[in-house]
Amino acid sequence: MTDKLKNQMHFLADADKMKNILRQTYITDSSRQENSAEHSWHFALTVLTLYEYCGIEGVDINRVIKMALVHDLVEIYAGDTPAYDAKGNEDKDEREKAAADRLFSLLPDEQAAEYRSLWEEFDRMETPDAFFGSAVDRLQSFHNIYLSGAHPWIKYSVTASQIYNRMMPVKTALPELWEYVEHVVNEGITKGYILRDEE
Amino acid sequence: MTDKLKNQMHFLADADKMKNILRQTYITDSSRQENSAEHSWHFALTVLTLYEYCGIEGVDINRVIKMALVHDLVEIYAGDTPAYDAKGNEDKDEREKAAADRLFSLLPDEQAAEYRSLWEEFDRMETPDAFFGSAVDRLQSFHNIYLSGAHPWIKYSVTASQIYNRMMPVKTALPELWEYVEHVVNEGITKGYILRDEE
Repeated sequence: MTDKLKNQMHFLADADKMKNILRQTYITDSSRQENSAEHSWHFALTVLTLYEYCGIEGVDINRVIKMALVHDLVEIYAGDTPAYDAKGNEDKDEREKAAADRLFSLLPDEQAAEYRSLWEEFDRMETPDAFFGSAVDRLQSFHNIYLSGAHPWIKYSVTASQIYNRMMPVKTALPELWEYVEHVVNEGITKGYILRDEE
Repeated sequence: MTDKLKNQMHFLADADKMKNILRQTYITDSSRQENSAEHSWHFALTVLTLYEYCGIEGVDINRVIKMALVHDLVEIYAGDTPAYDAKGNEDKDEREKAAADRLFSLLPDEQAAEYRSLWEEFDRMETPDAFFGSAVDRLQSFHNIYLSGAHPWIKYSVTASQIYNRMMPVKTALPELWEYVEHVVNEGITKGYILRDEE
């Protein structure tokens, strides 16, 4: 085997560590936290299943699925940064950039550039693919949080407006899903696991 | 929300059960069994990473990635059937067909047909996409089994020729990886976790 191929196999072995990166989201039976590998799969399957509801022009579903596969890889070295953890988000960019340098260096230059650019594009949310992808990523988490007992919303004392801010991309990227977002937030307020903004 | 969309969300909630389907393969640190959701992600990432070594004509990487996302979904109701478990494989087809009927019935007709046909095509291994996909699926498992201590090979007293039979698609689908397969089998025989055929 060439050194190039050996390094790609090494990268794939390293990628296995995603299975040990725990997110704040639980799996639906609420028995344990979801890890970043299974989240990435569930996110990609959600793209495939809900693509027909895409409300924005110019989205290439195949590129969005590729983004889903690589979007969390930097967590192998940077860890997962919970969405509602203000402190963790302060140095998130810096930590993730250093992690990307380390992780993608195992890949041949062209492939490293491809994966890095998919990840950076996803993170900036500026292109149709990245914007739609981010909306689906957030929807998958939102759906799982709702089904599994709202752990992170309770843990971080999240308010309705914080959730609406985070879920806002769904309104344009998946307009038919917005009613579901509102339904869950209203139910969460009623049941006491999402705070009203005045509280 | 329409009933159609509600059912698709229900399907995505059901798909979460893949995170509780345990495979015989372990994660690389050998701490626990791999589940089918994280395997599906790792398989799809391996397709993306090793596609340049594809040795057969006419493979559409985007279709192979879609196959990776849906290829194990029937395990939600049929369970994982270990490759080297002869008894479990006797009624595997029947169990998986019944599981597919149940699982895909949540989806609108056209999408149900799409997922079912991707799964059936993958399983038959007759098209270039399915053949390449199956080779990568087996390579991901093989790589993880090797890195994590060969649990299923030891458990099922697997012989070198059983592994070569199972890995044979790699020889044509990913010819540059065949040397790696041989290297691992030879090392496995030396270390005693793969049986020589005369044993």
